[in-house]
Amino acid sequence: MSSRLCLHTITTKPWPIETAIDAYAAAGIGGISVWRDALDGRSIPDTGRRIREAGLTIVSYVRGGFFAALEAEGRAAAIDENKRVIDEAAALGAPLVVLVCGAAVGQSLEESRRQIRAGIEAVLPHARERGVKLAIEPLHPMYADTRSAIVTLGQANGLVEAVADDHLGVAVDVYHVWWDPALAAEIARCGDRILAFHVCDWRSPTRDLLNDRGLMGEGCIPIRQIRRLVEKAGFAGFIEVEIFSTEYWAMDQHVFLDRIVDAYKHHV
Amino acid sequence: MSSRLCLHTITTKPWPIETAIDAYAAAGIGGISVWRDALDGRSIPDTGRRIREAGLTIVSYVRGGFFAALEAEGRAAAIDENKRVIDEAAALGAPLVVLVCGAAVGQSLEESRRQIRAGIEAVLPHARERGVKLAIEPLHPMYADTRSAIVTLGQANGLVEAVADDHLGVAVDVYHVWWDPALAAEIARCGDRILAFHVCDWRSPTRDLLNDRGLMGEGCIPIRQIRRLVEKAGFAGFIEVEIFSTEYWAMDQHVFLDRIVDAYKHHV
Repeated sequence: MSSRLCLHTITTKPWPIETAIDAYAAAGIGGISVWRDALDGRSIPDTGRRIREAGLTIVSYVRGGFFAALEAEGRAAAIDENKRVIDEAAALGAPLVVLVCGAAVGQSLEESRRQIRAGIEAVLPHARERGVKLAIEPLHPMYADTRSAIVTLGQANGLVEAVADDHLGVAVDVYHVWWDPALAAEIARCGDRILAFHVCDWRSPTRDLLNDRGLMGEGCIPIRQIRRLVEKAGFAGFIEVEIFSTEYWAMDQHVFLDRIVDAYKHHV
Repeated sequence: MSSRLCLHTITTKPWPIETAIDAYAAAGIGGISVWRDALDGRSIPDTGRRIREAGLTIVSYVRGGFFAALEAEGRAAAIDENKRVIDEAAALGAPLVVLVCGAAVGQSLEESRRQIRAGIEAVLPHARERGVKLAIEPLHPMYADTRSAIVTLGQANGLVEAVADDHLGVAVDVYHVWWDPALAAEIARCGDRILAFHVCDWRSPTRDLLNDRGLMGEGCIPIRQIRRLVEKAGFAGFIEVEIFSTEYWAMDQHVFLDRIVDAYKHHV
């Protein structure tokens, strides 16, 4: 019943990845999306093997991007770093890298967007060579200052269509897109370019811009409706739970995991 | 030099409105936008008179709206309340009421949007009768849960065009719209329907969703560029500083006022 459920390691941040692997597998969860920091000090291929031996599918590697920078040097460094991220994804056995595209204070959003496109085009050949796809994740407009100049699914679609490479698609995260009046039309426009689907919820009130995401069902996002839209567009992959929450990270993570599985069953 | 500058009373919240009136006038500020709470316990006509006698122009009355509600009773109460707001604006001598349109958790954004339109249409005859215009202020998408289902200038324009009443227009606040890839096109689409223009800045990091707005120039919003766009569209009215800031409210408000005037001169 939860075989299409996937967890991001950051969702249970207090756990080392080895604990997460065992706990996810024991809970009948089908997939895992691995954050870079979860691999600190580990052999990447060994960790990938361990995940597969536990019966989990590696869904994505999180995260590349941050292509925008005021100086050419910073942009070149970002391209190098993204190539390393792609190498790590390949070594882990992850088919996908999620891109948080970046934005730089001190230049226009338009300039950041040009730099993002240039960065993506610069790393795509490397991604293809390693057999790894890239997903542009549009972020909520409240992150337009420093995290992502790509703030709507429409922009992500426009970029993917302009670059036109079969190794490039989008990641749809309900937290980032639920407010958008163009959402249904833009999801339909995605078609088979939806490479990832992330869920959590928007709490009212939201007490922190970064780390107060809610468990599915405790907020106002019409998650089921958005899920129907992405599935109607052709998406049949994992449903990834990505929750940043100071409150939940302070809980016993086994109890939290049970609540996630329960929320997935009742609200996704 | 600052005669087109207008302050919202909430910007200097610690001051009673009488202090604000004297201080704004002494600083050479041309306009004042009055929040409802600033009039608590006062005669509204007397306060209006006092403002005019100080040489200040009353730019807008803030705020009406919040039309969305799960129950019909709540929606009817909102319409009554908005008529009272319009009466107060007329009594004060304010030509404009700014609308924060509202949103209700527990129903879809589409339903909230329908209710908003119905609410606006229900109060417009009253606004016309009192000689008060209404401005729809699209809010930043991070307020879509409870404050406004209208989150883009495109939506506000669509609503204004659909209702088609010369007493209805939009308020453009740089804080709410700066991230929008459609911004330039939507400002041009507004034409002479821009009834108000609000400025402040977006701080990086923003530490609070509500009360951490920045002074112009200390954030990443291209304020001058947006000002040029609204003026190119035909707007020639006051430039209103609306800052909610726990940090600035804790300062000596005379010092803060000097900084506002300075920021207006150098960054707007």
